Amino acid sequence: MLFDTVTIVGVGLIGGSLGLALKAKNAARRIIGVGHRESSMKRALERGAVDETSLNIEEAVGDSDWVILAASVRLIPDHAALAAGGMKPGAILSDVGSTKEGICAELARHGHNGLPVVGMHPLAGSEQRGIEAARASLFESTTCILTPGEGSTDEAVSKVTRAWEAIGATIVVLTPEDHDRLLAGASHLPHVIAGVLLNSLTEDCLSYGGTGLRDTTRIASGNPDLWRDICAANRRHILDAIERFQNEVEVFRQALAAEDDERVRDLLNAAKQRRDNLPAARLRNRE
Amino acid sequence: MLFDTVTIVGVGLIGGSLGLALKAKNAARRIIGVGHRESSMKRALERGAVDETSLNIEEAVGDSDWVILAASVRLIPDHAALAAGGMKPGAILSDVGSTKEGICAELARHGHNGLPVVGMHPLAGSEQRGIEAARASLFESTTCILTPGEGSTDEAVSKVTRAWEAIGATIVVLTPEDHDRLLAGASHLPHVIAGVLLNSLTEDCLSYGGTGLRDTTRIASGNPDLWRDICAANRRHILDAIERFQNEVEVFRQALAAEDDERVRDLLNAAKQRRDNLPAARLRNRE
Repeated sequence: MLFDTVTIVGVGLIGGSLGLALKAKNAARRIIGVGHRESSMKRALERGAVDETSLNIEEAVGDSDWVILAASVRLIPDHAALAAGGMKPGAILSDVGSTKEGICAELARHGHNGLPVVGMHPLAGSEQRGIEAARASLFESTTCILTPGEGSTDEAVSKVTRAWEAIGATIVVLTPEDHDRLLAGASHLPHVIAGVLLNSLTEDCLSYGGTGLRDTTRIASGNPDLWRDICAANRRHILDAIERFQNEVEVFRQALAAEDDERVRDLLNAAKQRRDNLPAARLRNRE
Repeated sequence: MLFDTVTIVGVGLIGGSLGLALKAKNAARRIIGVGHRESSMKRALERGAVDETSLNIEEAVGDSDWVILAASVRLIPDHAALAAGGMKPGAILSDVGSTKEGICAELARHGHNGLPVVGMHPLAGSEQRGIEAARASLFESTTCILTPGEGSTDEAVSKVTRAWEAIGATIVVLTPEDHDRLLAGASHLPHVIAGVLLNSLTEDCLSYGGTGLRDTTRIASGNPDLWRDICAANRRHILDAIERFQNEVEVFRQALAAEDDERVRDLLNAAKQRRDNLPAARLRNRE
């Protein structure tokens, strides 16, 4: 057993799936779930994602060997402060936020008090939310990025790595800044663009969308509060990515306007080559 | 039996699926497939998408009650001229091109010689191509747009409508211009943007894309020659759609740069509402 007691704060899609997966692979003996709504706590218990529940972070972390903050990006700094106040020496503090620079800086403040901090970002999930959508297989064949902060130890990174590998993920270690820059392009920009695309269409176009429009805009169904927080937390890198994107739109528009159809073809072909070479493993986790 | 003999010129994904579906629903007794590669003609025969094959359009249309031009947009005008030369009076001339203004004008030139012309655009398909990907169910729960030209007759539109309904599609009748404007937004712009998105990412971002990036860019795998031709054939409407899109990107960029996070949230929420209200029926035809 890798961990005796694990506390998961925020038992939604990611937190709930982590609970189910860690239990299914015997990577944790006992899981305590923390949330602010009794109904979702009850549902997490019923689904077997947690063994016990609590409405109080400080009380729920005292026995834990690993505390995972899995609520929204905006709440993680406050949760980290509460958790750090109640954790035992040597226990590991982690989060699963979609941005890492700001959060890891917050977490590192607590890491200085002898608490190993390991930021995490599993590249899994969907536009669905909540414990209802959680499943033990969510992380199979996915990548999980670890961003160890100043307060990390090799031992903590190693234990966290083994836990993710046990539930099917491959680990990549990045600095928080590299993480945020790479994810701005690979995840946050696509989300913004899917939304902008929908907002730019005239109303009468919408009913003529086939599978192409549906797939291209699927992620725009994500929760707007959560994505506002991600945009705010990763503002600088997302703005860089948007500006590169704007330049590329203009390159295409100019080729089309100039009737340079072979240039249009070359641009489409360059995109096709990139699409065809995207890593394929994660297809298995498509909803 | 709606049609005795149907000739399909171009037996790829759409042409081949039409052959399979019309046979499966007994909407045509005999289907002649025309192509320029003997190997794909042989495969179409083996799969039962056609009963006979030919390499010569004029010879293959003499007995036909319905001729369907299903090759790429660029070839349809030449194919229409060849077909019109061999068709019997009263037979219906159709195409399945993704753009309609230019093609329907070409087809209408032949319609003036007593040939009822009915342009068609089934909103089905995928980034896959060729007879290998064809299936009888491709059009189930999809929309097919008809754009009857000057040379159309009510009887021809009615027969074509019944054939599409027999194979599971719902018919919408539009003018060629409305079709091209609506599809520029609903289909061509998403394709362009998926490609531009990929081209704008730095190389090191690409391996961090999850299901979000994969879904958002799926259609960019489409054939670049085919899409160059669609872009050229619908240039004006696509440029309009790109310019509206550029304005909307700039609206979002300014809100994010100005740290107006509630405006960011409102834009994401407007997109979410539009996404959640897209017509859902066509989901069943997702690849």
